[in-house]
Amino acid sequence: MRQKFIELAEVYQTTLLDNVIPFWERYSLDWEQGGYFTCLDREGKVYDTDKFIWLQNRQLWTFSWFYNQLESKEEWLEIAKNGADFLAKHGRDEEGNWYFALNRKGEPLIQPYNIFSDCFAAMAFSQYAKASGDSQAQEIALQAYNNVLRRQDNPKGKYSKVYPGTRVMKTLAVPMILANLSLEMDWLLKSVPRSGSLRDRLQNILDRTVREIMTDFLDPEQGLLYENVTLNGSHIDCFDGRLINPGHGIEAMWFVMDIARRRGDRVLIERAVEVVLSILNFGWDEQYGGIYYFLDAKGYPTQQLEWNQKLWWVHLETLVALSMGYLLTQKEECWQWYQRVHEYTWNHFVDTQHGEIFGYLNRRGEVLLNLKGGKWKGCFHVPRALYLCWQQFSELSLNCKSSS
Amino acid sequence: MRQKFIELAEVYQTTLLDNVIPFWERYSLDWEQGGYFTCLDREGKVYDTDKFIWLQNRQLWTFSWFYNQLESKEEWLEIAKNGADFLAKHGRDEEGNWYFALNRKGEPLIQPYNIFSDCFAAMAFSQYAKASGDSQAQEIALQAYNNVLRRQDNPKGKYSKVYPGTRVMKTLAVPMILANLSLEMDWLLKSVPRSGSLRDRLQNILDRTVREIMTDFLDPEQGLLYENVTLNGSHIDCFDGRLINPGHGIEAMWFVMDIARRRGDRVLIERAVEVVLSILNFGWDEQYGGIYYFLDAKGYPTQQLEWNQKLWWVHLETLVALSMGYLLTQKEECWQWYQRVHEYTWNHFVDTQHGEIFGYLNRRGEVLLNLKGGKWKGCFHVPRALYLCWQQFSELSLNCKSSS
Repeated sequence: MRQKFIELAEVYQTTLLDNVIPFWERYSLDWEQGGYFTCLDREGKVYDTDKFIWLQNRQLWTFSWFYNQLESKEEWLEIAKNGADFLAKHGRDEEGNWYFALNRKGEPLIQPYNIFSDCFAAMAFSQYAKASGDSQAQEIALQAYNNVLRRQDNPKGKYSKVYPGTRVMKTLAVPMILANLSLEMDWLLKSVPRSGSLRDRLQNILDRTVREIMTDFLDPEQGLLYENVTLNGSHIDCFDGRLINPGHGIEAMWFVMDIARRRGDRVLIERAVEVVLSILNFGWDEQYGGIYYFLDAKGYPTQQLEWNQKLWWVHLETLVALSMGYLLTQKEECWQWYQRVHEYTWNHFVDTQHGEIFGYLNRRGEVLLNLKGGKWKGCFHVPRALYLCWQQFSELSLNCKSSS
Repeated sequence: MRQKFIELAEVYQTTLLDNVIPFWERYSLDWEQGGYFTCLDREGKVYDTDKFIWLQNRQLWTFSWFYNQLESKEEWLEIAKNGADFLAKHGRDEEGNWYFALNRKGEPLIQPYNIFSDCFAAMAFSQYAKASGDSQAQEIALQAYNNVLRRQDNPKGKYSKVYPGTRVMKTLAVPMILANLSLEMDWLLKSVPRSGSLRDRLQNILDRTVREIMTDFLDPEQGLLYENVTLNGSHIDCFDGRLINPGHGIEAMWFVMDIARRRGDRVLIERAVEVVLSILNFGWDEQYGGIYYFLDAKGYPTQQLEWNQKLWWVHLETLVALSMGYLLTQKEECWQWYQRVHEYTWNHFVDTQHGEIFGYLNRRGEVLLNLKGGKWKGCFHVPRALYLCWQQFSELSLNCKSSS
C-alpha cells in the first residue's frame, strides 16, 4: 500500500502545484482594480467581472493559507494583498457588515443579506493577518467574527422571508461554519491581549456546534445529516425539513473529525466516519456513479431542479473526508469508497486539456457548464482539498513505513 | 388542413376535459381544511401539504375561469369557493399584502416578499367575483390590484437585496404581469361605480406595458426579449443583464398578440409573431429537441444550473403562442414550428399512464422529477394552454370552412 499512497500524494501535490494554483495565478488576478476575477471560462478567459464576496474572501484565504502552510512565497503574499486591500476598502457597509457582491470597481451590488460573507471574511483576514503580520487585518478579522457571533441566531436578519413562529427551524450551515471558523480564529484569539473571554467563548462554541451537529442534525437511525431541523433537533415533514445535501453532510463530518483528532476523541472520529459512509450509501448514484447534489429523505421530489447533478465540491470534500477517515481509523470501507469516488472524480471532473476542474456535471457525468469559475466556484474547494489529500496520503505512506 | 385543425381541437378538448381537469378535481382538493393540495406525485398522491399562494390563487383562477368561459358547472364553482374562502381568510397579512406560502391550516410560512402573489390574487378574485357575484371577492380583487400598482416600482420592497443605485435594472416580469392582469381586471373596473380614474389608469398601464416590452426589453436586432434591462432599455454586460428565458419571452408575446388583436393592431401582431419565431430559433435545442429554460445572450455559462432542462410551461405557452400566431397571421413558419413543438411536447411531457403531464425533463427529454405538482407547478399553465389551443384550432377550422 505504501507505494500506492506515495503515488496518490504525488498526484495531489502535482495537480495542486503545477496545475491548479498556476491556473488561478495566471487568469484570476485583477491587478488593475484589485481583487480577483472568478468568472473564468474553460480556458481561463474572464467572462464576467462582478466580484462575489464569498469567493473574493475564499481566494484571499487560500493564498494566505498556502503562504502559511506550504511555502512563504512572496508572490502568494502579493496575490493575497491584492485581495485584502480591495476587500478592506470596498467589502463592508458602514456598519461593518460584509456585502454579498460588488462590481469590478468595488461598488456594492448586493446587500449584506446573511452572515456567510462575514464568516469567509473572518477566515480570510485571519489567515492573511498571520501571513502578513498586518494589524489592520487582525482587526478586520475580529470585527467579522463578532458580526457572525452577533448575528448567528438570525443569519439573514431583516432579509429573512420566514414568517416568525409558524415553523421554526435551524440550518446545518450555521454550526458547520461556526465550527470551521472557530478553528481558523484560534491562533488569533490566543495572540490578542485581553481576548480571554472571546477565547472561552470560542471553546464553548466549538463544543456546542459539534454537539448540535452530532445530535440535532444527525438522524441516528438513518445516519444522515438533515439540512434543517427544529430547534430541538426533530424533523418536520416539509420540503426544507426533508432535505438532504450529501456533500454538505460529508464536509461537516470531516470538520468534526478534524476537531475530534485535535482532542484525541476516538469515539467521535469513529462516529463521524460511520456517518460519512452512511451518507455515501444513501447519496451515491448507483446507475451513473457520482454523488447526488440534493435528495429528499423520504424519496419525494425535491424543490431543487439541480438535484441529480454532480458538483465538484461535493466530490472533492468527499475525497478529503474518506482519506482523512481512512488515515484516522484504517477502516477498509473508507478505502473502498475512497477508490470509487477517486475514480469518478478524476475521470469526470478533471479537464486534461485546459487545466483545473469542471464544476458542474449532469447526472450522466457529462459537463453541464464548461466554466472553471463563476458565482459559486472559485479558488477554494479544489486547492484546499488537493492540499489536504496530499498531506493525508503522505501521512498514510509514512505510517506504512513505520509499521512495516 | 381543416380536418387537421378539427383533430387538434379535439385532442386539446379531450385532454382538458377528460384528463387534466379530472386529475385536479380528484386529487387536489382539501375539503377538510380549505384550499388546494398542489404537491402531487405522478399518481396524484399528496406528498406535501404546504400551500403556496401563487398556486392557490392560480387554481382558484382556473376553476373560476372555466366556470365563466366554458360551462357554469356547480362543482367548479364549489371548487373555486373552497379556495376563495380559504384564501380570503388566511392569504393576507394585516396590511392586506399576500403571503408567499401557508401551511395546510393556513398559518403563514413565508412573508409577502414580492408583488406576484398579489397579482395572482387580483386575477383569481376577479374571475371568482365574476363567477360567484360575490361582492367581497370584488373588494379583495381591487385591493390586490391596488397593492400591485402601488408596489410595481419596487416589487420586492424591503426584501430586495439589491444595493440601491449601483446597477439599476428593471425586470420583464413586471410589465408582463401588469399587461395580463389589466386585461383580467377590465370587466371589474367597468362594473364598479366611480372607478373611472382606475379605468383610465388601466388603459395607460396597458399602453405603457406593451410599449415597454416591445421597446425596452426587446432587442430589435436579435429579436430577443431580455429578462433584465436598464431603466431606458439598454443592456448591461452581467449575468442578469445577459439572461434570456425563451419561454417567458414567448409567453409575453402571446399576451401582446392578445392585446393587439383586441385593438386591431396588425403591425403589432406581426411584430410579436416575428419575435416568437426568433426566440425559437435562438432557444431550440437542435441536438435533443425542446426549448432551453435559460440561455446567456452571449453564450456564456448561466448562473442557473437548470438552464438546459425542458419545462412544461415553456412548451405549453409556446404552443399557445404559435397557434395564436398562425391563426392571426397564417404565417407558414408558425405552422412549421407549431408542428415541431407539438411533436416534442406530446411525445415527452404527456403521462399516458397516470394522466396530466410531467413538469420537468432533463436536456434529453427524460423525466427529471416525476411530479404532477409542486411548489411551482399547479393547476394553471396546462389547463389554460389546453383551453386556448382548443379554441384557436376550432377557430382555424372554422376559418378554413368559410374560406373553402
